[in-house]
Amino acid sequence: VGLGLNNEHGISLRGLDEAKQADLVFAELYTNLMPNLSVANLEKLIGKPVRILNRKDVEENAQQTILDSTRNKRAIFLVPGDPMAATTHIDLRLRAEKYGIITKIIAGVSIQTAAAALVGLQSVKFGRTITLPLPHCTPPESPYDYLRTNIEAGLHTLILLDLHTEQRQYMTIRDGIRYLSEIERIRRENVFPNNILSIGIARVGSDDMTLRGGTAHELGEMDFGSPPHCIVVPSKLHFMEVQALRHFTNLEMEEVNAL
Amino acid sequence: VGLGLNNEHGISLRGLDEAKQADLVFAELYTNLMPNLSVANLEKLIGKPVRILNRKDVEENAQQTILDSTRNKRAIFLVPGDPMAATTHIDLRLRAEKYGIITKIIAGVSIQTAAAALVGLQSVKFGRTITLPLPHCTPPESPYDYLRTNIEAGLHTLILLDLHTEQRQYMTIRDGIRYLSEIERIRRENVFPNNILSIGIARVGSDDMTLRGGTAHELGEMDFGSPPHCIVVPSKLHFMEVQALRHFTNLEMEEVNAL
Repeated sequence: VGLGLNNEHGISLRGLDEAKQADLVFAELYTNLMPNLSVANLEKLIGKPVRILNRKDVEENAQQTILDSTRNKRAIFLVPGDPMAATTHIDLRLRAEKYGIITKIIAGVSIQTAAAALVGLQSVKFGRTITLPLPHCTPPESPYDYLRTNIEAGLHTLILLDLHTEQRQYMTIRDGIRYLSEIERIRRENVFPNNILSIGIARVGSDDMTLRGGTAHELGEMDFGSPPHCIVVPSKLHFMEVQALRHFTNLEMEEVNAL
Repeated sequence: VGLGLNNEHGISLRGLDEAKQADLVFAELYTNLMPNLSVANLEKLIGKPVRILNRKDVEENAQQTILDSTRNKRAIFLVPGDPMAATTHIDLRLRAEKYGIITKIIAGVSIQTAAAALVGLQSVKFGRTITLPLPHCTPPESPYDYLRTNIEAGLHTLILLDLHTEQRQYMTIRDGIRYLSEIERIRRENVFPNNILSIGIARVGSDDMTLRGGTAHELGEMDFGSPPHCIVVPSKLHFMEVQALRHFTNLEMEEVNAL
């Protein structure tokens, strides 16, 4: 069951109904950050205890922590955002089915469509979603290539930023801009120039959501506050999308006109 | 505010909270079909009457039907699925803001991410979403080109099927397969051959959801029942996605292996 965005009010009524009917309620909160989620409030809503599992519980010890106790019971597993976005969810579902447990998915609100809507861009005009990884040995250049493919096809791009919730490491909009700018500096293929129009979004679904547009350079200088962050890079714009961008992202007209 | 999928239980708790606090509640149910929605149940949940608007009310007479009565009041506008997927929603939002009304978006569950999750494919591995139009003068071939672009990039494709809810016209999976097969027959570019692996999904979020995989030819012969329908065309598959497809779409192994 997907918990949706921001806090315990992101869940659908259908998801909450299922949770209330369950014998056992599990949750993982490490594949994504819900900045204002209170487990106590979630338990109050559902009316029963919620067992929070960490990465090791789900990925290494699923048999003991989840599957064994679930046999002949009705259990639900709550996850941030929309379920099955992470391979670990697909893996768990397959393991459960092999174990003889019948599974069912209750969808949740996803940042993938919510970000598009907030910015005023049409979700069907987006190409592949890109995820930028937190620093490790050699940063892959594939995100730069995916971005080029989208731009060449006239498609908008949502850029998700990596996080390691258990280590409290969250990539910021600034980190994301630097990541792509660094590849641009080396490859010089004009995919992500300093003046490319970009939109930074922080804390979608919360009362202090921040949404601001500008050039990549400008965005890299702004402080968007606490995580989670993501970036949208618009491409070919419909007349209505231009108006929406101007109005909802505080963009100077010349930046939009320059597209 | 997005109503999510299937019926009145698709809405998020956040969306329902906002509706309860509103002075006026409007809804449109023509941009998408929620097959089991009961307006009476929705009104019971919210605790106040919901005024259902048709296409003309929203697109031609928004000023009289919505904007004039909303000044200095708290109003919400409920839409099927995720809001702002239709340009008509972006247009209405812009008109409201120009009228001095402050607007806010509450995201809903979208078929775009829900379909991916149900099939066991990763939503970030999807390319551009394609919409096939109901028959009119000359059916555009652009969906065929978009599909090729996705396949060439190794990306999965969600194919949405057009509907005119007010005329009770709904494209079926069979119609969609025929649409693309007809373009294939003329252009012969091997983008949508008879044996391409496809997955048909009907009535996502409902108790009688149907999800079946097969070749395009096989899908075109199946009866998926009442609308709404959509189609997923998988492309390059991760090992885990292959397992999920086999398990959750009743696919013969040879069809998946043939990829």
